[in-house]
Amino acid sequence: MSTINNQPTLPVSKKLTLGLFGFGVVGKGLYDVLQSTPALQASIKIICIKNAGKQRAIPPEHFTTSAAALLDDEEINVIIELIDDADAAYEIVKTALQKGKAVVSANKKMIAAHLEELLHLQHEYKTAFLYEGSCCASIPIIRNLEEYYDNDLLSSVKGIVNGSTNYILTKIFEDGLSFKDALLEAQQLGFAESNPSLDIEGHDAANKLTILLAHAFGNIASPQDFIYNGITAIKKTDAELAQQKHLKIKLIATAQKINDTQLAAFVLPQFVEASDDLSNVSNEFNGLITESSFADKHFFKGKGAGAYPTAAAVLSDIAALRYDYKYEYKKYLQPNKLTLTNDYFLKIFVSADDIEKIEKDQFEWIEEWHNEANNNWIVGIIHAIKLQENDWWKQPGVSLILHQNPIVNNVAYKKVGKRSLQLAGVV
Amino acid sequence: MSTINNQPTLPVSKKLTLGLFGFGVVGKGLYDVLQSTPALQASIKIICIKNAGKQRAIPPEHFTTSAAALLDDEEINVIIELIDDADAAYEIVKTALQKGKAVVSANKKMIAAHLEELLHLQHEYKTAFLYEGSCCASIPIIRNLEEYYDNDLLSSVKGIVNGSTNYILTKIFEDGLSFKDALLEAQQLGFAESNPSLDIEGHDAANKLTILLAHAFGNIASPQDFIYNGITAIKKTDAELAQQKHLKIKLIATAQKINDTQLAAFVLPQFVEASDDLSNVSNEFNGLITESSFADKHFFKGKGAGAYPTAAAVLSDIAALRYDYKYEYKKYLQPNKLTLTNDYFLKIFVSADDIEKIEKDQFEWIEEWHNEANNNWIVGIIHAIKLQENDWWKQPGVSLILHQNPIVNNVAYKKVGKRSLQLAGVV
Repeated sequence: MSTINNQPTLPVSKKLTLGLFGFGVVGKGLYDVLQSTPALQASIKIICIKNAGKQRAIPPEHFTTSAAALLDDEEINVIIELIDDADAAYEIVKTALQKGKAVVSANKKMIAAHLEELLHLQHEYKTAFLYEGSCCASIPIIRNLEEYYDNDLLSSVKGIVNGSTNYILTKIFEDGLSFKDALLEAQQLGFAESNPSLDIEGHDAANKLTILLAHAFGNIASPQDFIYNGITAIKKTDAELAQQKHLKIKLIATAQKINDTQLAAFVLPQFVEASDDLSNVSNEFNGLITESSFADKHFFKGKGAGAYPTAAAVLSDIAALRYDYKYEYKKYLQPNKLTLTNDYFLKIFVSADDIEKIEKDQFEWIEEWHNEANNNWIVGIIHAIKLQENDWWKQPGVSLILHQNPIVNNVAYKKVGKRSLQLAGVV
Repeated sequence: MSTINNQPTLPVSKKLTLGLFGFGVVGKGLYDVLQSTPALQASIKIICIKNAGKQRAIPPEHFTTSAAALLDDEEINVIIELIDDADAAYEIVKTALQKGKAVVSANKKMIAAHLEELLHLQHEYKTAFLYEGSCCASIPIIRNLEEYYDNDLLSSVKGIVNGSTNYILTKIFEDGLSFKDALLEAQQLGFAESNPSLDIEGHDAANKLTILLAHAFGNIASPQDFIYNGITAIKKTDAELAQQKHLKIKLIATAQKINDTQLAAFVLPQFVEASDDLSNVSNEFNGLITESSFADKHFFKGKGAGAYPTAAAVLSDIAALRYDYKYEYKKYLQPNKLTLTNDYFLKIFVSADDIEKIEKDQFEWIEEWHNEANNNWIVGIIHAIKLQENDWWKQPGVSLILHQNPIVNNVAYKKVGKRSLQLAGVV
């Protein structure tokens, strides 16, 4: 080795004094994790909780019910926001940023609702807001989208982003549990949101997709801008059909470039082939596939729910703050972004207890038509805007599941129009 | 949204002027990729090649045979080193760093051999040396190990790190090709090193494991410090046995914490269960599993060979240099690192054309013993140091394959010693 004039040393890191909001599953998880990582030199000074009377695992002197005790404490330079209430979380995060404190949060609902403002606040007050734990818990997807795919070549991001529904689907379709029992198990294991409808109706996955859209493509959207649904409508007969065809049913969030200027986004149950990496994502695991022109496909898999996996992501954000890491939002700040559209075609399977509930006139093309007592279904092509603007497919008894390759080349169907319906004798 | 005083803008990035060494598969791939990413504002000023007479895909004015023309050009602030010759590559990288230029390389052999010196040179000359393309091509593993697992909780990193051997194993065991034909196909597709013995004898995977060790655990080791082998010895009968047991055989690199102070590392063919994520890594794909205390398991999969996947990783390094990104080597610089040891026990399968070739006295315990004409094998426990210090298991006709859970709790075997051999009537 050559003569070394000066030895490299550890980079200088900032000492972090943390103020923690919330001591639920993830908050307690983070507390445990920090106890095990003294090397991080980050300590929780005080924890703000809502209910002072509740029995806690650590002594009462660690707690306060006063938000100001954390937000006004000048020694606290990082606020960790891990509460359930999205509105209260927003006020905390906003105030903390305005006071120049760095903030870490895992509150996807709050982030999805206020991302643009929070992005501007970071810039205005020259501080950082990190939220790796808000998407796929432990999987470092936001950081990778920010840093690794830091060019315009990403063509799609899709995956299983909700651990609770994936756990439920696995238990129902692979272990034969009822929906109710599977949900109860997910709640007991700490995988479900305290309000399970956020998970099972797809809101949580839609919130995560908006966060992914911002970091993958620079689009700041709202869940109202794209089609999404949860898993509550999936029927036993749908699952049996999937099994016959060697497919699984997963709740998948997709953001996909469809042409040089536009992007499709949706969260829907989808049939998945055994050869698809997402087929091997079971229980509370999450999985994401990115596609880009040159790196081709990347698959990331990790625990997507639970106290420690989420706490691990929060911990990685805390570690990054020691070196003043910030999201740059380079794609959002670029001039020529892809725009989100609902002008594309989807190949869908729709089953219904009553065939009349399926609005067949809405389809551009019907490929399969099955009409049996209590087991009626259609496979066909529909324009996405018709799903976005109508909700016949969300009524009780109707289940919509995407085909394994859901986005179809739109040109042909625009030309063909209603012809197939006539050919099939349906209209 | 609150009133915005000052709009956020794209962070200021450095203009990069590149000098490229090498115009082989990856060099040409990078050239193509850069042509498609004008937003990067990085352009190749000149390309240094060895053989001026060779026909090239782009005009001759882009080329020179003088290394000094790149290294002495003050306008060139980044050297991209993509040549085959590891010794020449080392001289180029060293000189470039000494001249204060940033360097990107994908030359794992050179990096593995000189990592400690190159690390010090970066510090001494205050410049960056990035090499994401050297490990698993397109998978952003080095960056994730550096940035995301930036604490002391990682317990293991293991995976398929050589695309060429994985392609060959897939073609042989899943598609029925001969070794020779599979290798030829891998070479034609540009997945193999120009000297295939680097791949098939395991040297390339061992070089990658040394790079992973440095970034995962802060250990700077040499392939000579741990056990490694390639895939040339694997026999048809080994594959048949694997298939009977619903296992696959993969070449797997492992670095695993075995106690509070020590680390085991090895690269060997290994049986893999169908439920293991690595079982679904086929053809030229690579896959890596990290395990850590809180995030639990993460699985990364992506193309591990080929011009564009490697060029994509080089591109990501170039993109990172625009914002002065450097590896911090925090784990290497920490005081209490895990040390590499060969003092642990492995559960292995060894087959041989002649049973006498199996040095059964070297085993601590023999679990299975199969003695049939031309199909002889043992499953047993052996101390790793005995594999490191002896090479009976590398002689022609002998094939060593690790058990699917190769590292065994060492305490029991230390106590039991040779007893099982006597019980089995073998000694």
